Amino acid sequence: MFKPIKNKKVYEYVIEQIQQMVMDGALKKGDRLPSERELAEQLQVSRTSIREALRALEVIGLIETKQGEGNFITGKIEDNLFEPLSVMFMLNKGNPIDILEVRKIIEVEAVTLASERIKQEELKELERLLYGMRDTNDEKESAKLDKEFHFTIAKATGNYLIVSLFHIISSLIESFIENARFKILRRTENKKILFEQHREIFINIKERNSKKAKSLMAEHLEFVNKIIINK
Amino acid sequence: MFKPIKNKKVYEYVIEQIQQMVMDGALKKGDRLPSERELAEQLQVSRTSIREALRALEVIGLIETKQGEGNFITGKIEDNLFEPLSVMFMLNKGNPIDILEVRKIIEVEAVTLASERIKQEELKELERLLYGMRDTNDEKESAKLDKEFHFTIAKATGNYLIVSLFHIISSLIESFIENARFKILRRTENKKILFEQHREIFINIKERNSKKAKSLMAEHLEFVNKIIINK
Repeated sequence: MFKPIKNKKVYEYVIEQIQQMVMDGALKKGDRLPSERELAEQLQVSRTSIREALRALEVIGLIETKQGEGNFITGKIEDNLFEPLSVMFMLNKGNPIDILEVRKIIEVEAVTLASERIKQEELKELERLLYGMRDTNDEKESAKLDKEFHFTIAKATGNYLIVSLFHIISSLIESFIENARFKILRRTENKKILFEQHREIFINIKERNSKKAKSLMAEHLEFVNKIIINK
Repeated sequence: MFKPIKNKKVYEYVIEQIQQMVMDGALKKGDRLPSERELAEQLQVSRTSIREALRALEVIGLIETKQGEGNFITGKIEDNLFEPLSVMFMLNKGNPIDILEVRKIIEVEAVTLASERIKQEELKELERLLYGMRDTNDEKESAKLDKEFHFTIAKATGNYLIVSLFHIISSLIESFIENARFKILRRTENKKILFEQHREIFINIKERNSKKAKSLMAEHLEFVNKIIINK
């Protein structure tokens, strides 16, 4: 199972071994890691190195520490404490418009795939979110339902990587385009237009009309992006 | 600048403060962080907490430790020691075919944008890589040039997020689809077909014919994906 470690930068090797065990399938979601002391003994390194490695894995969102219970493998990308891509994007002077460009690419293709693959319960969920958006007068609630509508489409592709990218792009939008969804909804006429756009997208997904759903999603995101860019 | 820290899970707050300083533009690429001792004093936390935070940031690839010189902000997403998305993908039982699907989405759109935005020196670089692929008989070298050809197209979009996604997808392919590029090149007739496909893509980018470049890239990746899936 765990192999003893030689060499320098000890915590890196600890991380590598845990990473490798996940990649080999030896560690799965929900599994509890051995205690710090056990890990230190098995890998023959100091508890400090073990603690450093575990902290890093917690920051990344790979493990979750439950007080008194130990460290568990979680693997929820949406739960990480740190947003590496947001920080990288900032350091590399990325342009916020780049985020909107990529969002459109991903979501336009996602709706195409979703139209072919969506399950009955996901269609019901889309419908529930759609009428939720129509019926609420709370802007924050509406923005939340809007995001969930798009997220449900990403999930309906059945492609876990598309779902991951959806999360990454959402957190980039939240970091770099402040209150984007909120701003859009502030104007009442927009609310009606947006409901209509979402409704038409929903109908075409439901009718498995992927080409039409695709062009409607492109139009919808062009409309949204224009508002965000001009503010 | 740095504010003293109260409360529990101390290393998280240290990370948050450093992350925030990057997001505010107070820390830039190449900047040196204060020493562990200085950080511990400024934030009024233990050196252990500082060290834990710095380790985590090193794993993520945000900082680089140079022996005897200190910790520097790097921001090279391609240099991180850990591949969070690969591990998440594994834990969430992602299907390797999902990676190929997303790769096609990103690269087909990237070549469309690249055809509109590419600079003279990037065109020259593409041409150099193309003829490098034709002239080498070394399979590894050829696979490397092939990857660089696609990477140059991603860069030519001028969209940093597309470049980041290209890196993420490349490392997923390397983790989940062993020797993908290598396998494809093993057969001599493939080598000729691939050179021809890349050549045509290059010509259409050069002629700013984005529609044709797009459909050629789609065909190229369908060809490649088919070989990878059937092996």
